Amino acid sequence: MNKATVLMAEMTWPEFSARLENEPVVFLPTGMLEQHGPHLPMGVDHLLPTAIAEMVAQEVDGIVAPPINYGYKSMPRTGGGPSFPGSTGLDGTTLIHTVRDVIRELARHGVRRICVIDGHFENLWFLNEGIDLAMREVGDTGLRVMCLQHWEFLTRDTLDVVFPDGFPGIELEHAAVLETSLMMHFYPDLVRTDRIPDNAPMDAPPYDVWPARPEWVPASGALTSAALASPEKGAAMVKQYRDDMSAAVRRELLS
Amino acid sequence: MNKATVLMAEMTWPEFSARLENEPVVFLPTGMLEQHGPHLPMGVDHLLPTAIAEMVAQEVDGIVAPPINYGYKSMPRTGGGPSFPGSTGLDGTTLIHTVRDVIRELARHGVRRICVIDGHFENLWFLNEGIDLAMREVGDTGLRVMCLQHWEFLTRDTLDVVFPDGFPGIELEHAAVLETSLMMHFYPDLVRTDRIPDNAPMDAPPYDVWPARPEWVPASGALTSAALASPEKGAAMVKQYRDDMSAAVRRELLS
Amino acid sequence: MNKATVLMAEMTWPEFSARLENEPVVFLPTGMLEQHGPHLPMGVDHLLPTAIAEMVAQEVDGIVAPPINYGYKSMPRTGGGPSFPGSTGLDGTTLIHTVRDVIRELARHGVRRICVIDGHFENLWFLNEGIDLAMREVGDTGLRVMCLQHWEFLTRDTLDVVFPDGFPGIELEHAAVLETSLMMHFYPDLVRTDRIPDNAPMDAPPYDVWPARPEWVPASGALTSAALASPEKGAAMVKQYRDDMSAAVRRELLS
Amino acid sequence: MNKATVLMAEMTWPEFSARLENEPVVFLPTGMLEQHGPHLPMGVDHLLPTAIAEMVAQEVDGIVAPPINYGYKSMPRTGGGPSFPGSTGLDGTTLIHTVRDVIRELARHGVRRICVIDGHFENLWFLNEGIDLAMREVGDTGLRVMCLQHWEFLTRDTLDVVFPDGFPGIELEHAAVLETSLMMHFYPDLVRTDRIPDNAPMDAPPYDVWPARPEWVPASGALTSAALASPEKGAAMVKQYRDDMSAAVRRELLS
Amino acid sequence: MNKATVLMAEMTWPEFSARLENEPVVFLPTGMLEQHGPHLPMGVDHLLPTAIAEMVAQEVDGIVAPPINYGYKSMPRTGGGPSFPGSTGLDGTTLIHTVRDVIRELARHGVRRICVIDGHFENLWFLNEGIDLAMREVGDTGLRVMCLQHWEFLTRDTLDVVFPDGFPGIELEHAAVLETSLMMHFYPDLVRTDRIPDNAPMDAPPYDVWPARPEWVPASGALTSAALASPEKGAAMVKQYRDDMSAAVRRELLS
Amino acid sequence: MNKATVLMAEMTWPEFSARLENEPVVFLPTGMLEQHGPHLPMGVDHLLPTAIAEMVAQEVDGIVAPPINYGYKSMPRTGGGPSFPGSTGLDGTTLIHTVRDVIRELARHGVRRICVIDGHFENLWFLNEGIDLAMREVGDTGLRVMCLQHWEFLTRDTLDVVFPDGFPGIELEHAAVLETSLMMHFYPDLVRTDRIPDNAPMDAPPYDVWPARPEWVPASGALTSAALASPEKGAAMVKQYRDDMSAAVRRELLS
Repeated sequence: MNKATVLMAEMTWPEFSARLENEPVVFLPTGMLEQHGPHLPMGVDHLLPTAIAEMVAQEVDGIVAPPINYGYKSMPRTGGGPSFPGSTGLDGTTLIHTVRDVIRELARHGVRRICVIDGHFENLWFLNEGIDLAMREVGDTGLRVMCLQHWEFLTRDTLDVVFPDGFPGIELEHAAVLETSLMMHFYPDLVRTDRIPDNAPMDAPPYDVWPARPEWVPASGALTSAALASPEKGAAMVKQYRDDMSAAVRRELLS
Repeated sequence: MNKATVLMAEMTWPEFSARLENEPVVFLPTGMLEQHGPHLPMGVDHLLPTAIAEMVAQEVDGIVAPPINYGYKSMPRTGGGPSFPGSTGLDGTTLIHTVRDVIRELARHGVRRICVIDGHFENLWFLNEGIDLAMREVGDTGLRVMCLQHWEFLTRDTLDVVFPDGFPGIELEHAAVLETSLMMHFYPDLVRTDRIPDNAPMDAPPYDVWPARPEWVPASGALTSAALASPEKGAAMVKQYRDDMSAAVRRELLS
Repeated sequence: MNKATVLMAEMTWPEFSARLENEPVVFLPTGMLEQHGPHLPMGVDHLLPTAIAEMVAQEVDGIVAPPINYGYKSMPRTGGGPSFPGSTGLDGTTLIHTVRDVIRELARHGVRRICVIDGHFENLWFLNEGIDLAMREVGDTGLRVMCLQHWEFLTRDTLDVVFPDGFPGIELEHAAVLETSLMMHFYPDLVRTDRIPDNAPMDAPPYDVWPARPEWVPASGALTSAALASPEKGAAMVKQYRDDMSAAVRRELLS
Repeated sequence: MNKATVLMAEMTWPEFSARLENEPVVFLPTGMLEQHGPHLPMGVDHLLPTAIAEMVAQEVDGIVAPPINYGYKSMPRTGGGPSFPGSTGLDGTTLIHTVRDVIRELARHGVRRICVIDGHFENLWFLNEGIDLAMREVGDTGLRVMCLQHWEFLTRDTLDVVFPDGFPGIELEHAAVLETSLMMHFYPDLVRTDRIPDNAPMDAPPYDVWPARPEWVPASGALTSAALASPEKGAAMVKQYRDDMSAAVRRELLS
Repeated sequence: MNKATVLMAEMTWPEFSARLENEPVVFLPTGMLEQHGPHLPMGVDHLLPTAIAEMVAQEVDGIVAPPINYGYKSMPRTGGGPSFPGSTGLDGTTLIHTVRDVIRELARHGVRRICVIDGHFENLWFLNEGIDLAMREVGDTGLRVMCLQHWEFLTRDTLDVVFPDGFPGIELEHAAVLETSLMMHFYPDLVRTDRIPDNAPMDAPPYDVWPARPEWVPASGALTSAALASPEKGAAMVKQYRDDMSAAVRRELLS
Repeated sequence: MNKATVLMAEMTWPEFSARLENEPVVFLPTGMLEQHGPHLPMGVDHLLPTAIAEMVAQEVDGIVAPPINYGYKSMPRTGGGPSFPGSTGLDGTTLIHTVRDVIRELARHGVRRICVIDGHFENLWFLNEGIDLAMREVGDTGLRVMCLQHWEFLTRDTLDVVFPDGFPGIELEHAAVLETSLMMHFYPDLVRTDRIPDNAPMDAPPYDVWPARPEWVPASGALTSAALASPEKGAAMVKQYRDDMSAAVRRELLS
């Protein structure tokens, strides 16, 4: 290994220790093992935030902690739901405590700037709570934490590029144009381009039911067509992520 | 991607679903983010079991679930303890619940043969408990789970090769000859060969104390010298792992 | 009391027991004690779903369980955040377990159709998880649960009436036109009409930070102006709620 | 709303905030949804402490937080037990954490004087524990908490008025003279006066058994006759409550 | 060991296994480490129920499991409160889970009749909840559990013997005549007869406050005088316990 | 009682309070109710550490808290596993919280030196975690905790005496020569000398499986022969324990 890594898992402890002196931002990617249609691998939700975190960390001289690979349960309206084989969800409290513990430990090492980058829609509120519990335990030490879901950073301009026919809304963007384009950009070898689905969008009611109704969800697992995905669209999103996330991290955590 | 992967995170859900028909063993690697001396990366404890799981999965036509990257707290006598920067431990109950949840979910998908491969000494009893809770919840469904720490498979013959001057005992093998040799074999780019420590073995008493006594632990974080590590020794261990773990998995889970 | 109530808290047990024979839907309102601007009472989030639940219950011959008055912590971008005096949030796990327990107990009484009506944006995922845990514990008994946040039922037509200048998005509708109009309809005595705020909309970034930044939130606590609220708009929403929620409940739980 | 409310749920946040300057006592009513015989509504246990809290709050210029409507499981010897339809009990730990969270949050708002008023016999020890956990978390801030079950305030003189033939003991006073008279006073519309039971007292042994023995409990759910209840008796109790609880609150929390 | 023991801790597993064939009652004593005045040892609350359980087990051919030595926190009005050195209380949830686990495990061994005998007033509701959770987990297996606090068995006749001047009520009987007499009977060597306190009864109000008020409690820790305790009174109570508890156990668990 | 006890359960609170002035070490024995072959009682794991703790406490003028009688679940390879009647294990989290609570409370009394002495192999990591949680809660108060499993103190010299034919390793020493000899020394009346097993050692693989395989474990429950046990060997071990544990306690906690 002859160049500096941003990956904490690939650093030795003296390297990590030396890096702490500059008060770096530590990025924590959070994902899920979950169906992403017939064309994307089930690890999309940790693969994307890890790649994004690496990119932003390089911009701001930060560090990327290993991803939390398992996340909260898939819901039908946003991820197809639990009935797809392979969607492997944690109980909410388990995820809350995992995030709390990792942040508490990073803070114990002296880290004071943490950015959680999430790739799984259903994770958000359990991440929020895990962060909040860590803040309460850690107390008044100057620890600052930021939590984001990457797609929230997409601007109107970028969305116009990616969805020239109009943005259908983030809820349908599971295994669809947005995630497929990002995977084509970051992990082209993991996309089965011959199996990109072109189904109609899911038409689900504005509520949830238990037991889940698999019939609400397109059989492919993609909540709408991914046919218009392209690596170029992925690159466009990534460029904007790089600029805007770096700026946000600098503004919130490094100023 | 033009050849079959064993990595669940790189499979699509239809691929995973098709694989389930053969009732494969699913391997779950469990690790820790923890200091491993001045020469090994902090991700050793999930990197090694993931590599081993991939190897054994290829032998038995199995599947490797994404690793649980964070593990139980480092203890001074077996991992150097919490005072090393970067050793990022979960509370015991958090790890218990993570393992329970992942196994419960795999069982819900129809998996009936699971092999947990652990790379972090301190994890074991929390893994045991997580498995036990999952078994209790899942009930009488035919689910079988196996749990191993890879070094427990080393035979006297292999130990004689790796430690020609005598095996100092597994407790001291943190960031020492055993782990260094395995890393040289599987991840040579991640070993800082110019910084391999050659310190005297830790001389700790037969008990633990809180607050931890950092002075019990060699300053390098390696609990004894790693100077005699080599990729050849790693290969010798790995060969035996391949044979014996595959045999054990076949005997316990596939017969 | 000379007419039939739908409120479970006002029924005697023999009355409730007799009602169970018809397999009624039991509605569970969930709220929060939280700031709602200078003009609305802090109980808005349980008052509205309780009123809505009563209305829908009368339509479908259902029963309204007592509300869960406390909910998940207020977040700055959706409720103003914890810094407002009076915003009294439960830990996530506490809310999860409360919902789980109430549903488990209703199921034990023989209830098989439950509709959770939520009035607090931040509650949703903890409600989802509480319901999911209850379903897992209750097992295969025919229990069906529906969970909704009332504003999700607003159609484009209704939104055009309520927001003739365009719907600013649900995130800003905390203590603004939507909630104020509904309160004017259901609880006119509790609205301080002389203190309805007319501040500019919150302009928050697309992420959260801890410690919270009170400066992101308008000083009034209303995330945008409520000046155009009216009881007529409230009535328009309520009429649509009555029709569409009743239809949804019949479709999902009574067919 | 043209007069000052003591109900926190009906206050705006600026009103609550202004009230905090006087360091008021905040009352927290705790109840249960539980059978109370053929004549009383199932919400008695939150209705009574809420009414009592309002009354005492007016005396001491205090504030009443919204009630916790669900409580600990009904036991046969004190509430008829779980077999009555509608008795909807929380797990003990859920109630403990709810009380802990509400008190922790009130303390975070700056409240330093809290009085929990309980209406459900079985709640007491879980309230105690929730308060104790909150005290431990809040630490040395000057927070003072008082916890009472209203009937414990009845003096010998009052008992002589209410039970001229002798007080049968508080355990039997479930849905009997005491609670019925109080409901007649506070909520006359909710009492089915034509269905007041006149059964013999429960004759239960001095221990509990699981599974519960419904045959220990009178079929009505009232643990003894309520025939001699009257609004006048209710008024007598309430008068004493007003005087003595106000005095106790002043003595313990306001001096 | 030349005669049959009833103590499970002193049995071998084959002896226990053989005993199970007769479907014996297993007694579980629950105690507390807590101050009991200047004259009684702090283990009174597990010593007495263990002795009582042994006695009753001999009557009904039962088995006594090892006591749970630590119990719920001492409260001022019933045990003097936490301020006495040595009163070592568990959190409520810890005790709940301990009782749940032990009962679940006994049931797993095939035990179907369990009698919890408690010696610590403050334990009761956490024992109730632990039993209830175990019943829910164990399901419909025929398991029956009984839970008692020994003093609840005292009849009017016995109380007249022990308290010829009138029974002051069980709340005051902490380290007073009742417990002292029982200790004189069962463990005379552990009673410091030269230090038996003769203080006036505690005069506490009908509620609790946090922080606790040590000044409510007599300085001795005995809540009233123990001067009239005697081994003869202890023997009288014990005789009645033996008869009535045996009868109750036979009636509830062995018929 | 005419001589000073070291047993906290047999002290009065004033005696305990007086002892605290000397800042004594408090010993906490932890055990398990578990099969120990056909010749040893099921309480071995709390009986031995309690006896050892008493002995060491007398050496260092310490205090012995009551044992925690129930421990973590028996595992086949180290205790025979859960299938033996009578092996009554707690869930891991229950044991963690019990240890945490007892230590937190001892610290609240002013104890600053605690030594946990464990007699059950499977307990260790849950004890570690309980201690760690207590340390975190108690904070920076000077509390020091030591945790040991007694057999870890055996030196090579002692092992040569006890196992003249070679030490088979601690894992097999369940109900075998080591524990049997110690019981013969401390509790000769509880050893069934006519039933000492002489089976071959267990030959288990280097991993665990669920469901457990009872066929891995010798039918006696002793993991190897206990035939060569003797009270003299017990005395030899005990002598070394006395010297070395006292020295360790003095070094770690009293200097």
